[in-house]
Amino acid sequence: MKRIGVYTSGGDAPGMNACLRAVVRTAVYHGLEVYGIKRGYNGMINGEIFKMESSSVSNIVQLGGTMLKSARSKEFMTKEGRQKAYDQLQKFGIEGLVAIGGNGTFTGAKLFFEEYGIPTLGAPGTIDNDLYGTDYTIGYDTAVNTALDAIDKIRDTADSHERVFFIEVMGRDSGYIAVPCAIGGGAEIVMIPEAKVTIESIIDTLRAGWNRMKTSSIIIIAEGEIEGGATKVATKVMEALPQMDARVSIIGHVQRGGSPTAFDRLLASRLGIACVVGLIEGKKNMMAGTINSSLVYTPFEETITKKKGLSPNFTQMVEMLSI
Amino acid sequence: MKRIGVYTSGGDAPGMNACLRAVVRTAVYHGLEVYGIKRGYNGMINGEIFKMESSSVSNIVQLGGTMLKSARSKEFMTKEGRQKAYDQLQKFGIEGLVAIGGNGTFTGAKLFFEEYGIPTLGAPGTIDNDLYGTDYTIGYDTAVNTALDAIDKIRDTADSHERVFFIEVMGRDSGYIAVPCAIGGGAEIVMIPEAKVTIESIIDTLRAGWNRMKTSSIIIIAEGEIEGGATKVATKVMEALPQMDARVSIIGHVQRGGSPTAFDRLLASRLGIACVVGLIEGKKNMMAGTINSSLVYTPFEETITKKKGLSPNFTQMVEMLSI
Amino acid sequence: MKRIGVYTSGGDAPGMNACLRAVVRTAVYHGLEVYGIKRGYNGMINGEIFKMESSSVSNIVQLGGTMLKSARSKEFMTKEGRQKAYDQLQKFGIEGLVAIGGNGTFTGAKLFFEEYGIPTLGAPGTIDNDLYGTDYTIGYDTAVNTALDAIDKIRDTADSHERVFFIEVMGRDSGYIAVPCAIGGGAEIVMIPEAKVTIESIIDTLRAGWNRMKTSSIIIIAEGEIEGGATKVATKVMEALPQMDARVSIIGHVQRGGSPTAFDRLLASRLGIACVVGLIEGKKNMMAGTINSSLVYTPFEETITKKKGLSPNFTQMVEMLSI
Amino acid sequence: MKRIGVYTSGGDAPGMNACLRAVVRTAVYHGLEVYGIKRGYNGMINGEIFKMESSSVSNIVQLGGTMLKSARSKEFMTKEGRQKAYDQLQKFGIEGLVAIGGNGTFTGAKLFFEEYGIPTLGAPGTIDNDLYGTDYTIGYDTAVNTALDAIDKIRDTADSHERVFFIEVMGRDSGYIAVPCAIGGGAEIVMIPEAKVTIESIIDTLRAGWNRMKTSSIIIIAEGEIEGGATKVATKVMEALPQMDARVSIIGHVQRGGSPTAFDRLLASRLGIACVVGLIEGKKNMMAGTINSSLVYTPFEETITKKKGLSPNFTQMVEMLSI
Repeated sequence: MKRIGVYTSGGDAPGMNACLRAVVRTAVYHGLEVYGIKRGYNGMINGEIFKMESSSVSNIVQLGGTMLKSARSKEFMTKEGRQKAYDQLQKFGIEGLVAIGGNGTFTGAKLFFEEYGIPTLGAPGTIDNDLYGTDYTIGYDTAVNTALDAIDKIRDTADSHERVFFIEVMGRDSGYIAVPCAIGGGAEIVMIPEAKVTIESIIDTLRAGWNRMKTSSIIIIAEGEIEGGATKVATKVMEALPQMDARVSIIGHVQRGGSPTAFDRLLASRLGIACVVGLIEGKKNMMAGTINSSLVYTPFEETITKKKGLSPNFTQMVEMLSI
Repeated sequence: MKRIGVYTSGGDAPGMNACLRAVVRTAVYHGLEVYGIKRGYNGMINGEIFKMESSSVSNIVQLGGTMLKSARSKEFMTKEGRQKAYDQLQKFGIEGLVAIGGNGTFTGAKLFFEEYGIPTLGAPGTIDNDLYGTDYTIGYDTAVNTALDAIDKIRDTADSHERVFFIEVMGRDSGYIAVPCAIGGGAEIVMIPEAKVTIESIIDTLRAGWNRMKTSSIIIIAEGEIEGGATKVATKVMEALPQMDARVSIIGHVQRGGSPTAFDRLLASRLGIACVVGLIEGKKNMMAGTINSSLVYTPFEETITKKKGLSPNFTQMVEMLSI
Repeated sequence: MKRIGVYTSGGDAPGMNACLRAVVRTAVYHGLEVYGIKRGYNGMINGEIFKMESSSVSNIVQLGGTMLKSARSKEFMTKEGRQKAYDQLQKFGIEGLVAIGGNGTFTGAKLFFEEYGIPTLGAPGTIDNDLYGTDYTIGYDTAVNTALDAIDKIRDTADSHERVFFIEVMGRDSGYIAVPCAIGGGAEIVMIPEAKVTIESIIDTLRAGWNRMKTSSIIIIAEGEIEGGATKVATKVMEALPQMDARVSIIGHVQRGGSPTAFDRLLASRLGIACVVGLIEGKKNMMAGTINSSLVYTPFEETITKKKGLSPNFTQMVEMLSI
Repeated sequence: MKRIGVYTSGGDAPGMNACLRAVVRTAVYHGLEVYGIKRGYNGMINGEIFKMESSSVSNIVQLGGTMLKSARSKEFMTKEGRQKAYDQLQKFGIEGLVAIGGNGTFTGAKLFFEEYGIPTLGAPGTIDNDLYGTDYTIGYDTAVNTALDAIDKIRDTADSHERVFFIEVMGRDSGYIAVPCAIGGGAEIVMIPEAKVTIESIIDTLRAGWNRMKTSSIIIIAEGEIEGGATKVATKVMEALPQMDARVSIIGHVQRGGSPTAFDRLLASRLGIACVVGLIEGKKNMMAGTINSSLVYTPFEETITKKKGLSPNFTQMVEMLSI
């Protein structure tokens, strides 16, 4: 293999630039040529492809977002789109790919490999940490810290005004972001997709607190839990407890941006290196991840179809620590 | 005057603790006794009053919120409520008051003075910076920096995904928070109560940008502008521009919390000192503020009824800098 | 066991308060009484011991430092000191202890157990991450992020002025802090106790960079490396390269403070719980830690005598990524 | 005037990029062509000059450092150097200049104008805030907040360990940075060039604190004060008070970097606009600044020779608030 391409795709995540830097420099270190592909599969189809040097990735390790930009591509989901993409890669002489993204990205890469045989390795870049095959995804640690920083600020107000705050955090269909926010944010209750918490139990907990003069509470709500998010939960709960002063805060898109934490930069660097080294060693169609701090390659087939479980111990921790 | 009381009231703001520290220590320095009153006028009515020493305010200068807690009091708006409050102050021998808060707080203080003759000086504590009689209110600088930090993070995502973001910031009926966020956040458009921006002009600006390949834009919307906030504006604009990828983010309550900036700590310290020194000098029924960096006392009457104007130059700056 | 004591000792670390909160609330949850002991072993000797409730640890999870304060005790190193400490514990009816600290702390606890049979479990609280028996210590993640944040700021200046910066970070006898700072900070070279980097090789690397117009470089130096720290290294290197513009920055004590990261709050909470649960189950004379994310108890004997190794892969990563 | 040049020179300061963005976009808005000159006067001499467009300054408003890089130029201090610089400007057809920097920069600009008649307007970019003709310089507010954030972290440790910290901050020959750090950081003592504090008085203050059980103190020391900096002061003080546990921390170069605060971005934007508008209006040889929030142009002659005074009230504030 002499020439590889790299792209970022799907939702952006802090650390994608650090990963990209590792991919480019590891390639250069090992004597490969490396091309950047802009806007994910869209740029692959449209030939937005350019040569990258070691200096192309100077001073980006600390930046949020992705310098290659990201997009979701409908055209790549068609046979014609993938043919165009393949033609572009042929034109540029690209023999292998590194994909930084999530399961949508890897689904595309798998399909592409099956049809055209282009070997691809993936680095898990998503704030949601919902990918099988790695303990942590790139961007997750930053997103949790960003959310927690917001919760710290909100608690200043909650505490000063003796209010109940219903705070919604991201995480798609999992509670990975919500749980450390609840434990680290000193929350009384956490609602996540993986564990049913009834509206009644929230009402009971808040009423019990109220009766012992505990008038300030924080409830962390994962966007994917089944009651439908912070606004709906707050409305239902406050109907039963009109005496309490409640507010809703949806942390929102800030969780996707910002300078990556040390953890995310290190993880991104390790996995970027692993993708290039893996391609050189002939690996393909797999995602690089870390499990128990060790590097592991998992077939895209598995990362796409299997589900990573969140330990039920964590919700118990929230209950115990909010006593 | 031998004994004064101090309370925080209305919406909390970063720097209230720094102001409280200055009030307590200046009082001690000048040989006064100082009592803390919890939960604003509610605590005054209920006698939640306690002696404070210099050490009571150690290590709080950097904390958001208010250690005295804050509340809005309906009872104080009644004659009976104020009578109870007066009785409590008599009981504790409190001869003067320092009120840290906004216009609601000062309205109460003015009424109280007219009925019972208790001299009160006020320090302007509100993130909204909408008080006549001071160039800056305590908490404003922190709120702007918090909002701007969020906007920086969102721009990482806006830029990576080539999206339009409609970002709503606080500020009640003024654009004081929105304007520096727009200039400092590199926004294309700012919508504030003080200046009419039509939906049509936003559509035109975004369409013109789109036509010259500018696909990422940030629009800052003050909560008080007349179209009804970011969600409504975004809906209307996006109906006309379905090809653009748009998102809404409401920064929300984080803007009220967090560790105060250097500017807010310094301002809070100056104004806390000014309140105590002013009481000693016999001033009453006025708010301490700074105008052109000089200390100024303005009668509550004026701070409540007059309106501070935002320079129209600022919206021009946004237009010029987003070219 | 009905009544336990808890103390923090040795160098303070961010997350000690989060750990303390977990200890207190877990004890309360399980029906134990819990007493706080101030100033480590000094307070144990002097009887600075007070009852803690669930509310004693409200709103501290986000604070750096330790509300129990910390100290190194010479008196506890004497037989008489330990006798006094034992007498105090007897007086307060304390039957078990949770010690939050490092190896000095655990050495004291082990000695105390051998002489007086007081069961103690330890939580590893130190920014240095140099304790055998846990992958991560409480405070380490925060310290790395604090140092990295400083390095990011310094790089702005290094890059603008095309300077070489010699930056010294903490870590005692290990490179645990230096290595992620170097990888995440985009450094060219890292000097750590575990791997010899000669002054000559630094000179060669910088000169080679200079010759290809690379005029800005960052060199991360662990305080414990053998050349004697950043100032000495910089002096030697710059004698050979007088044409380069170099500066030294010692990050210093900021690395010990600040609000703990999400990772540290979660780790601190888990280990605080583990210490109380372990005492209830009859464990003693051991440190709670996490290895590969699983909870592990390691005898103090081993944590004190064994050494945790830093993977040599990391210094290779720095070399490869700085190409 | 049809074509202007812009450069950054001297020590870098956060907000230089925001100022540069304002210069470029205001020029474009008013139909001027604008050229960037790299590395200050060095780049002017060497012809490192390139055309800038509105998009050249996209997404830089939030970045520390300066994208044009900065340098101090010895060659420009010679007649030959300035001749070369003039020849380059002629070659590029540059008719006016905007200089972002401090007094060294303005001294060069003034000399250049006297010899070659190139009109230059300056924007005050320095963290030291020591320029006559403006209440605030670009970068000052950020530097103070960075230093204060470090002091907050150090206080966590000072407080936990009951230590005395001698903390040195920047500011060259003035106490502008030290004073708000002392007031906002809850320091006991501040040493600045403008006010003599004797070693004896520090010893007395600390001893008095020690005697009333106040064992943790923070002393802020401006780098320019006459005793020679934190290390020397600490050594002298601790000789007299060996019972106290003292540490020195020199905040250092972090104060020059980092993302600019809202205040600095707004100030930088205003002054960048003012420089371009001023050049169009025929102004020359002056620095744009703000005094009492109003825009003011001051001749370089005055900014270079006059000295801005720091209010003596501030040191009294430190004394009063540390009671």
